[in-house]
Amino acid sequence: MERDLHALLGDLVIANRILAHEGVLDDFGHVALRHPDRPDRFFLSRSRSPELVTRDDLLEFTLDGEPVDPKGLRPYLESVLHARILAARPDVQATVHHHCPAVLPYAVADVPLRPVFHMASVLGGPVPVWDSRDGFGDTNMLIDDVPRADSLAAALGGGTCVLLRNHGAACAAHSIPAVVFVCVRMRDNAELQSRATAMGAPRFLTEGETRLTAEMLMGERPLDRAWAYYRARAGFGGI
Amino acid sequence: MERDLHALLGDLVIANRILAHEGVLDDFGHVALRHPDRPDRFFLSRSRSPELVTRDDLLEFTLDGEPVDPKGLRPYLESVLHARILAARPDVQATVHHHCPAVLPYAVADVPLRPVFHMASVLGGPVPVWDSRDGFGDTNMLIDDVPRADSLAAALGGGTCVLLRNHGAACAAHSIPAVVFVCVRMRDNAELQSRATAMGAPRFLTEGETRLTAEMLMGERPLDRAWAYYRARAGFGGI
Amino acid sequence: MERDLHALLGDLVIANRILAHEGVLDDFGHVALRHPDRPDRFFLSRSRSPELVTRDDLLEFTLDGEPVDPKGLRPYLESVLHARILAARPDVQATVHHHCPAVLPYAVADVPLRPVFHMASVLGGPVPVWDSRDGFGDTNMLIDDVPRADSLAAALGGGTCVLLRNHGAACAAHSIPAVVFVCVRMRDNAELQSRATAMGAPRFLTEGETRLTAEMLMGERPLDRAWAYYRARAGFGGI
Amino acid sequence: MERDLHALLGDLVIANRILAHEGVLDDFGHVALRHPDRPDRFFLSRSRSPELVTRDDLLEFTLDGEPVDPKGLRPYLESVLHARILAARPDVQATVHHHCPAVLPYAVADVPLRPVFHMASVLGGPVPVWDSRDGFGDTNMLIDDVPRADSLAAALGGGTCVLLRNHGAACAAHSIPAVVFVCVRMRDNAELQSRATAMGAPRFLTEGETRLTAEMLMGERPLDRAWAYYRARAGFGGI
Repeated sequence: MERDLHALLGDLVIANRILAHEGVLDDFGHVALRHPDRPDRFFLSRSRSPELVTRDDLLEFTLDGEPVDPKGLRPYLESVLHARILAARPDVQATVHHHCPAVLPYAVADVPLRPVFHMASVLGGPVPVWDSRDGFGDTNMLIDDVPRADSLAAALGGGTCVLLRNHGAACAAHSIPAVVFVCVRMRDNAELQSRATAMGAPRFLTEGETRLTAEMLMGERPLDRAWAYYRARAGFGGI
Repeated sequence: MERDLHALLGDLVIANRILAHEGVLDDFGHVALRHPDRPDRFFLSRSRSPELVTRDDLLEFTLDGEPVDPKGLRPYLESVLHARILAARPDVQATVHHHCPAVLPYAVADVPLRPVFHMASVLGGPVPVWDSRDGFGDTNMLIDDVPRADSLAAALGGGTCVLLRNHGAACAAHSIPAVVFVCVRMRDNAELQSRATAMGAPRFLTEGETRLTAEMLMGERPLDRAWAYYRARAGFGGI
Repeated sequence: MERDLHALLGDLVIANRILAHEGVLDDFGHVALRHPDRPDRFFLSRSRSPELVTRDDLLEFTLDGEPVDPKGLRPYLESVLHARILAARPDVQATVHHHCPAVLPYAVADVPLRPVFHMASVLGGPVPVWDSRDGFGDTNMLIDDVPRADSLAAALGGGTCVLLRNHGAACAAHSIPAVVFVCVRMRDNAELQSRATAMGAPRFLTEGETRLTAEMLMGERPLDRAWAYYRARAGFGGI
Repeated sequence: MERDLHALLGDLVIANRILAHEGVLDDFGHVALRHPDRPDRFFLSRSRSPELVTRDDLLEFTLDGEPVDPKGLRPYLESVLHARILAARPDVQATVHHHCPAVLPYAVADVPLRPVFHMASVLGGPVPVWDSRDGFGDTNMLIDDVPRADSLAAALGGGTCVLLRNHGAACAAHSIPAVVFVCVRMRDNAELQSRATAMGAPRFLTEGETRLTAEMLMGERPLDRAWAYYRARAGFGGI
């Protein structure tokens, strides 16, 4: 188990670097991993840009978003965002909060983000939009307390992604490679949907296509191939 | 002949890397080459992202899409896509299947991709679109059996490119440098046509211009120059 | 105090490199820093592209835009632009003049640049546009004398940014990391607002959200994180 | 004089690399330089992508587009394009033919390319468009004979740029740094005009602004600064 945890924390660091390299995360945004042996705990970096995160930056948190031992480091202000999604979703092992530039237009314009190509079937359908003004009025936009985080987790529901109005997105999946894949395809679908919409009415995947294709893509074989590719591009060599 | 095969397999590896570097292929997509001495066989990598493909990843296939000797490696799920195009087109020596982001809008919006500048004359005219729903209904979108691959090959006809609705594209040509050139110009034309369309009604090449210019570009001189350039950019030095 | 000045001039060089690396500055544009001990003086590079600026290129200026000692070097033609903003705004310690490609459309089209996501709350609201034709007629577009620079400073008012019609922008803030952050978010907001507008009517931050979020982002913690990230990306290692 | 020629040929190689690095030239396109001592001769690379051009690739040509001594190397098919512009324009020392992706929409859509920001004042006004169908009908689109090259040179007139319908552009100026500057600003203006047009009616420079600003930018100081910057970005160090 110790060996497993060690390897998973290595993957958590690599996921931070991958999503920075792929243009999903920039100076802000973060990646969380549920503890493989204690489902009521998770790991997240201290307050640091994902591109710079190392193993020494990782802290352990409770599902209230509190660090078990802060070690004198400052956590992210939005740690609780991950905590409450993990609390609400026992099937989820990894979560991401990002402000990906390609995705943000769908958090600003009133147009649903919906799968327009097979790779984006993992979005599962039109992505819900959570609005902090509903129930919380004018805020500093952060998801930094339990009520807002619970409200966001409710908007995510059983899906893989949710948009935050004028702010960004959150993604959730059953493993680190899976959540990275979801983030990258959310980026790609947003870009593609925008380009296709500019040219005319886009044709979307059918519900049947979305379900059948997502099942295939969330399997070991495609995720292994994609993870090896993202790793290599982010400078971590082949597997 | 052995020498020729060795050099061609080296070019096949380089073509994988070039198309990854040029943004035509990403974690998915693949390049195939007909065996120079056995027209009923072809080469394709095992299931691996093109940017990471090496000579040791190459497997030999029959025109039914079956590996002659799998060597314990997993082939791509869509190997049969290449098999059936090569079966239908004796003039074709190399094929590519890709999901190039610049091209995908033309697989999503109902707008024909058509040559708008001289370099893209190699597309040959408006690019046909193949729709898996016609004849196959809701699927996981993969071209992983002979009937779908044959249907796609029929849509390609005698041309150099075909689009797959909500999925990607396939390209075919008489050599590796030629199919790489077709892929890159398909990317460039899609980008240019989208930009020009956003500004007003684009002027297309005439049929005569398309034919005369494609004949010139598919000659040894332009293809040699382009291949040397793509090779160098992908890190394989000059020739 | 000497130590402080030395460190600040190092940051001024790094800010030049960061803004070049982030695509805010190109061959033209510049960054100025008020002297920490003499508020009537400021530092600016000699006439050189920001990506190439070193500590030896820095010159000291008066608030009339004149070099205290030119050391035989050519100053920028627009040094006075920074001088007059610093003269008008005692709260400002650092200024930038740029022609960021993402921002320029808002200096060309008659559409106000306004915060569309939380990170861009630091723009403070719709960005004013200064037009050299108002009061100065046809010019060579440079802000190279005191009257034009004073007019521009008046248009900036108490804010963080102003646009120059058919030319570029100027930014001002209380520190080097803060003005770099403002520039990068001006870039991001322009890109995002353009993309969202192409898709439909964008939803903007409310006034309350803008104020609350900007107060949070202009604090030490977010600025430290962003500065460490920009530094690392520009090749200056972590902190 | 020998020393001068040697330095200028070095700059010609660097200009090839700069324009490849800046995304103006790709596998095709070329840069020519008039012989500093023999105005009826000029230098151009053999048929090779600009990114790969070295001093050994340079050949000397007459103003009919014929190589003085081919040295067994293949010239570009369109060498005569440069020859006839240099023949028609004694004030021009350097010319470029390119297919810059940002510029091409203006060779495809029926929208005039016009200076929308001060840096692009060097375009001089709306850029003329030359159409090979006017007078030559359906062709392979190349400018590979004297009549077509003379026709193109006539369309360029006394200006710095001309567009070739469905093909690309040609630029001309009084020195290598000047023609590089014109090409880069043609790229920037096209990108900016497209973005601004998508948002609303762009405001253009006035005729007076265009003239006054271009005079300033074509001076030694701005061109020196830009050339040092482009050189460094293309890997040739500072000056």
